[in-house]
Amino acid sequence: MLWPGVIRHYKEFLPVTGKTPIITLKEGNTPLIQAEKLSNYLDGTVNLYLKYEGLNPTGSFKDRGMTVAISKALEEGCKAVICASTGNTSASAAAYAAQAGMKCVVLIPQGAIALGKLAQALIHGAQVLAVKGNFDQALTLVREITEKYPITLVNSLNPNRIEGQKTAAFEICDHLEVPDFQAMPVGNAGNITAYWKGYQEYFHKGKIRNLPKMLGFQASGAAPIVEEKIIENPETMATAIRIGNPASWRKAEATRDESGGLIDKVTDEEILEAYKLLAEFEGVFVEPASAASLAGVIKLQKTQFFRRAASGRVPTVVCILTGHGLKDPDRAIQTVKEPKLVSARVEAVIEEIGMSNKDKR
Amino acid sequence: MLWPGVIRHYKEFLPVTGKTPIITLKEGNTPLIQAEKLSNYLDGTVNLYLKYEGLNPTGSFKDRGMTVAISKALEEGCKAVICASTGNTSASAAAYAAQAGMKCVVLIPQGAIALGKLAQALIHGAQVLAVKGNFDQALTLVREITEKYPITLVNSLNPNRIEGQKTAAFEICDHLEVPDFQAMPVGNAGNITAYWKGYQEYFHKGKIRNLPKMLGFQASGAAPIVEEKIIENPETMATAIRIGNPASWRKAEATRDESGGLIDKVTDEEILEAYKLLAEFEGVFVEPASAASLAGVIKLQKTQFFRRAASGRVPTVVCILTGHGLKDPDRAIQTVKEPKLVSARVEAVIEEIGMSNKDKR
Repeated sequence: MLWPGVIRHYKEFLPVTGKTPIITLKEGNTPLIQAEKLSNYLDGTVNLYLKYEGLNPTGSFKDRGMTVAISKALEEGCKAVICASTGNTSASAAAYAAQAGMKCVVLIPQGAIALGKLAQALIHGAQVLAVKGNFDQALTLVREITEKYPITLVNSLNPNRIEGQKTAAFEICDHLEVPDFQAMPVGNAGNITAYWKGYQEYFHKGKIRNLPKMLGFQASGAAPIVEEKIIENPETMATAIRIGNPASWRKAEATRDESGGLIDKVTDEEILEAYKLLAEFEGVFVEPASAASLAGVIKLQKTQFFRRAASGRVPTVVCILTGHGLKDPDRAIQTVKEPKLVSARVEAVIEEIGMSNKDKR
Repeated sequence: MLWPGVIRHYKEFLPVTGKTPIITLKEGNTPLIQAEKLSNYLDGTVNLYLKYEGLNPTGSFKDRGMTVAISKALEEGCKAVICASTGNTSASAAAYAAQAGMKCVVLIPQGAIALGKLAQALIHGAQVLAVKGNFDQALTLVREITEKYPITLVNSLNPNRIEGQKTAAFEICDHLEVPDFQAMPVGNAGNITAYWKGYQEYFHKGKIRNLPKMLGFQASGAAPIVEEKIIENPETMATAIRIGNPASWRKAEATRDESGGLIDKVTDEEILEAYKLLAEFEGVFVEPASAASLAGVIKLQKTQFFRRAASGRVPTVVCILTGHGLKDPDRAIQTVKEPKLVSARVEAVIEEIGMSNKDKR
């Protein structure tokens, strides 16, 4: 039962050979949690599962791709990796580079990012440089540098990232079955592309007999694919999907169309509601972007989408929860109420709990 | 390969029957990471492994015990659980109670705890009450309430917690072998007791042929077992082990003596150094208390402890890393340096990285 990480477990599907040095923090094999209470909340119209990707080593799904990207970089003799990132990518790159004994450089736009978002990259020893410019300029620099210098790009433009990320689709098939629908947040749109690649590869290998319909959800203030235009100033509290011009835009559209699915948008209010439901109903704490998947499913359910789609049985829906709630503690703190003060007497506490003397054992 | 959580996987060793409703977030089966660079750092005197318990669902080892405690509470018809806790216990209790559809009450001492430490309990819907008193008074209240009212105590006094926690020892044996030494932080001392119970049960069942020596480490400012006296005002930045009068004090001493191990103390400086080494050398981010295990191993290595203990081969040491670094983001932020500002030019970035024109591809 010892899980060896995604490369060793799925090596026949990945661009590795016996000579590839494997850099792993034992990412993958994340929980698939049956969400009975949420299924009931959705009037029993779906059989809902949660794929809890926040339990990857650095707290997000990025680790699946980073194990491949860093292992391949090491195989190619690379001594340093670089990315422009404000959050989960830099955390993952820094951790895997540390494990590989490689230098990791992270470029961020000046002044735009709170130190808390960078704490992981910094603690793992990455060299974080704040560039006098915006995020696009940082990304342009990263591309130029990696073209000219022997430093490997580990932004999502690196195709090994997608290769690793597709293993999550394999796990869902191995652990459960092919779901009827898969729901997930869409930001840069690399991950929906990766899952679809995974399902297709399993299908072509004969490991599964059908394919899921892919449901992607963008935040309303950052929904370029839904609105079919670049969003110059994307806005959403779901920072991990605050992207106005997705790198994998066309591939995400192809995924949507080939699978017979859809890409829709959900408001920050809907995301926050789903964020609370996951924590209070199922005990699963996610970063806000992750909750877009459930928010989308709730939105569709209200339109009878799943009832119409059902063919004699309740459809299975897997929601991808991309990151752990501990990634964004400020959001949690803003969401909750201060504890109430009570005197240190049994009766006072019992009254607050809503019990009284008559409830005694 | 679908992991069903610790109760289903280890049910023959746990106080459950076919009738026990199983409340799980798929805790357990956490990574065991071979730490080659740290082994080298320790002059090759040990073969070091890291058991990354921070990858349990709520980010700490507490989930292993909580799945058992909450499942048993539900089986017994209990509608509510209560604990006095300032951190990991309350997060875990709240998450599992949410999954079970039970009420969870958390008592905290007034004014002593930052909201960030309570964010998880609150987001999972626990009723958190600040008691006008100190932690001991909160704990006394919890005990009185659970004696008089039909509410289940889920502090570590609940024996089902220890039962669940022992499964981590099973996993180490199943995944690797019996280590020669196991190193871990010691606070309330329940966990060292739980691991020892696990190893002993496997030994008596004939699943393993020898037992590890148990090495426990307290923080210097909170080392009652080492100093053989209650510490009235324990002080350490490793908050998860800031305990002056451990509940399982005698059992921890028995574990130490029966296993032929030791319980020692490490300074906050040593803990912080180990905390950074784990992140920078192995890509593993832990909460400070977790680093006490590695700090202790480093301290012992300096005294030639492992060389003396070696009998013809390099001994295997497993360090238990009890919680994820994301549990204590403030500590990480205090530890790291602000990113350096650079102009948005390739040459400027390349110079900062320590490269120049001659390094071009």
